[in-house]
Amino acid sequence: MEVNDANVRSDRRDPDGPAHPRGFLPREAGKSVHQPAERSVDFPVSVVLPAGGTGERTGLQTPKQFCSFLGRPLISYTIQAFERVSWIQSVVVVVAEDNTDLMTDIVQRFRHGKVRVVPGGSTRHRSIWNGVLALGEGEGEGAVVIIHDAVRPFVDEDLLYEIATAAKEHGAAGAIRPLVSTVIASTSEGYLDHSLERAKYRASETPQGFTYDVIYRAYQQCSESDFEFGTECLHLALQYCGTNAKLVQGPPTLWKVTYKWDLAAAESIIKDALSRSACVITGGSAPAAALAGALREAVGALGTELDVIPDLMGDNARCLVKERNFILVSVGPSRLPEVEALLTELEAANRALLHPLVVIWVRLSDSDEPSVSGRAAEPAAIMDLSSAAKLRNILLYGIQLHQSKKWIRSNEARPRFHVIYMNAEPRRHERIQKKGM
Amino acid sequence: MEVNDANVRSDRRDPDGPAHPRGFLPREAGKSVHQPAERSVDFPVSVVLPAGGTGERTGLQTPKQFCSFLGRPLISYTIQAFERVSWIQSVVVVVAEDNTDLMTDIVQRFRHGKVRVVPGGSTRHRSIWNGVLALGEGEGEGAVVIIHDAVRPFVDEDLLYEIATAAKEHGAAGAIRPLVSTVIASTSEGYLDHSLERAKYRASETPQGFTYDVIYRAYQQCSESDFEFGTECLHLALQYCGTNAKLVQGPPTLWKVTYKWDLAAAESIIKDALSRSACVITGGSAPAAALAGALREAVGALGTELDVIPDLMGDNARCLVKERNFILVSVGPSRLPEVEALLTELEAANRALLHPLVVIWVRLSDSDEPSVSGRAAEPAAIMDLSSAAKLRNILLYGIQLHQSKKWIRSNEARPRFHVIYMNAEPRRHERIQKKGM
Repeated sequence: MEVNDANVRSDRRDPDGPAHPRGFLPREAGKSVHQPAERSVDFPVSVVLPAGGTGERTGLQTPKQFCSFLGRPLISYTIQAFERVSWIQSVVVVVAEDNTDLMTDIVQRFRHGKVRVVPGGSTRHRSIWNGVLALGEGEGEGAVVIIHDAVRPFVDEDLLYEIATAAKEHGAAGAIRPLVSTVIASTSEGYLDHSLERAKYRASETPQGFTYDVIYRAYQQCSESDFEFGTECLHLALQYCGTNAKLVQGPPTLWKVTYKWDLAAAESIIKDALSRSACVITGGSAPAAALAGALREAVGALGTELDVIPDLMGDNARCLVKERNFILVSVGPSRLPEVEALLTELEAANRALLHPLVVIWVRLSDSDEPSVSGRAAEPAAIMDLSSAAKLRNILLYGIQLHQSKKWIRSNEARPRFHVIYMNAEPRRHERIQKKGM
Repeated sequence: MEVNDANVRSDRRDPDGPAHPRGFLPREAGKSVHQPAERSVDFPVSVVLPAGGTGERTGLQTPKQFCSFLGRPLISYTIQAFERVSWIQSVVVVVAEDNTDLMTDIVQRFRHGKVRVVPGGSTRHRSIWNGVLALGEGEGEGAVVIIHDAVRPFVDEDLLYEIATAAKEHGAAGAIRPLVSTVIASTSEGYLDHSLERAKYRASETPQGFTYDVIYRAYQQCSESDFEFGTECLHLALQYCGTNAKLVQGPPTLWKVTYKWDLAAAESIIKDALSRSACVITGGSAPAAALAGALREAVGALGTELDVIPDLMGDNARCLVKERNFILVSVGPSRLPEVEALLTELEAANRALLHPLVVIWVRLSDSDEPSVSGRAAEPAAIMDLSSAAKLRNILLYGIQLHQSKKWIRSNEARPRFHVIYMNAEPRRHERIQKKGM
């Protein structure tokens, strides 16, 4: 049934359509309200991420996997793509000896809990083999190993699921893309010999998946020449284990960051995704969670995705480094100190150094709430907070909703809202009254 | 000799190295001081630019060839790449009927003098055929037709020269790139059948070149199925004319803008190039031209390229829409009105709407110049001009060099400079004296 589900998804995906933001949006699987049902994967899955490249082709001093945008190195985005998948156990990152310290620092700074750093070999295949060996001890019977490139940050859970389950079933599986250009064969003198019929061929990309047994045997048996000049793991699995990999079409965002300008492209994808995602913090209260759930449904239809979490404690603290937009929902008595705490945490995480963060505080209160004087003082307090936050590159907005208790308890009556917007610029402070919204 | 020259250049080019800025920098061939010797091409060369795409894959409303960055649509950058090559006669742009007006408007707005707009067919091959037919009448014996994609803006003169001369000699020629991914053949059930040995194959890109005779005969003879489903012109030349195209390796910047994020990548390449180019206006005086020549040599070593022109009249007006940095050199009596005129022209051309322009006015004067009072008034005047320009997004800087006459006349004595920097922010106005620079 799971496999069928994957097939259906695969058919629905338009391989040449624009990148779907969900493909690489941070998700808090299993922690959110109204999260789609999680996939069950009943076998161990680990990842080997060769990241030994020296970045010669970008024309940059820094190898491209370590180049940063939006305050985070490329490889950290790739790792994040695996860490957000709950059924992936561990990620082995294989780096050149020289970069071990740098990589270890990245792992700590961005709180990558699933990562082990392993020294690489002199070629891509030797590095992968090191990674597979490092995994070896911990792996049980029937484990699947996913091999991916550090410089392909936009790999999504759907594709990983298809690759993992296909690898489990067939021994090996690999992501493919349609050919962008016609492939031609050249004569030894540099003339066109013949062109291949484009429809019959595919570009082989990553992720690729293998049962531990297949990838281990393939590397154990392969030749020095394979280690030195080979690049294609699927080929080794076929040649040494007789395993014909299952091919799975991936989305266009699988593309490999290769040149300097690809970094600009990757940044634009991430910005686009970030602008369409936010983290909603409910404070754990049931009415706030209900409001967050409704909000999630409403904005979901517009292609915007919300992570809904009760607080930023424990694992949820990851949202601090992942998101750019925060929505704090509180119901009932004012929780201004919560807003202050969030601002302090965001500042401590150095999240607004390069690009502004947006924090929206939505406060839902009964119109019959007793403390009228408190209500008057609040907008002033949040505006002060807002002005201070702006200096730290955090844009704080407040939305206060006054409503009748009746609406909280049932859906029968349409609510009456009194909305007050408060933002960082006092001159734009407006008071809006909407009735029968 | 020309062909040898081209071969040498081809060997020197590192196909996987970073994009060389000269590859797509605006150049004013034949108009500049100290311009490298122009290549002679003694046969007519024209270009067909199919631009009928609907941009489905970018996920944007606007077809990608019409998407703008830095205030200019993508296709205009591509056309510019051909227009700056003096030996290319004309460019036929083939667009969908619906986009004829839009394209005509672009041609006028960006002063594309070599362009004709022709309605396209329903497929890529039909559009190219329309373009070839449109050229037909005007073409003489032995003409070469270059076919390129509107969405590959970074094609340089070196490559065009190699393609044109190889096409002339062999009947057909095409740009190739090494394969980025392994190419694999799939079984009909979607499993790996075999992988191709990467070293034996190439990706076929554009530009491609053909003698008019070859491309005309190929299209005249080809089948409806070729017109409908084919994409590769080199294949038609081989199949219908028995012409084995000469393959020429191009730089990585040949890549095709396909997805939305490719636009961000293209923008970053263009910004990078713009930041390393400038237009020097000499006012036609010989000492100013000599100074500009020296400047060009000095910054050339740093990878920055200068267009040196006497003024912005006639064809030179193109620099107004091409460049972002202007250096105005004047020698002798003050020419403040020239600075004002340039600012007016830049403003009229709407060049600083999105991104600031930089104008540097370098004034070289004799230290024994009589009007001491005039010299004192000038910095104040340029600062006023500067403040006004800043409001229009133009950053005006003034550099005044005082020197002894001796240096202008010979290189024997090292000059003594008194340099005054004047910029848009009065508080940063500094007086620097350098002796024996």
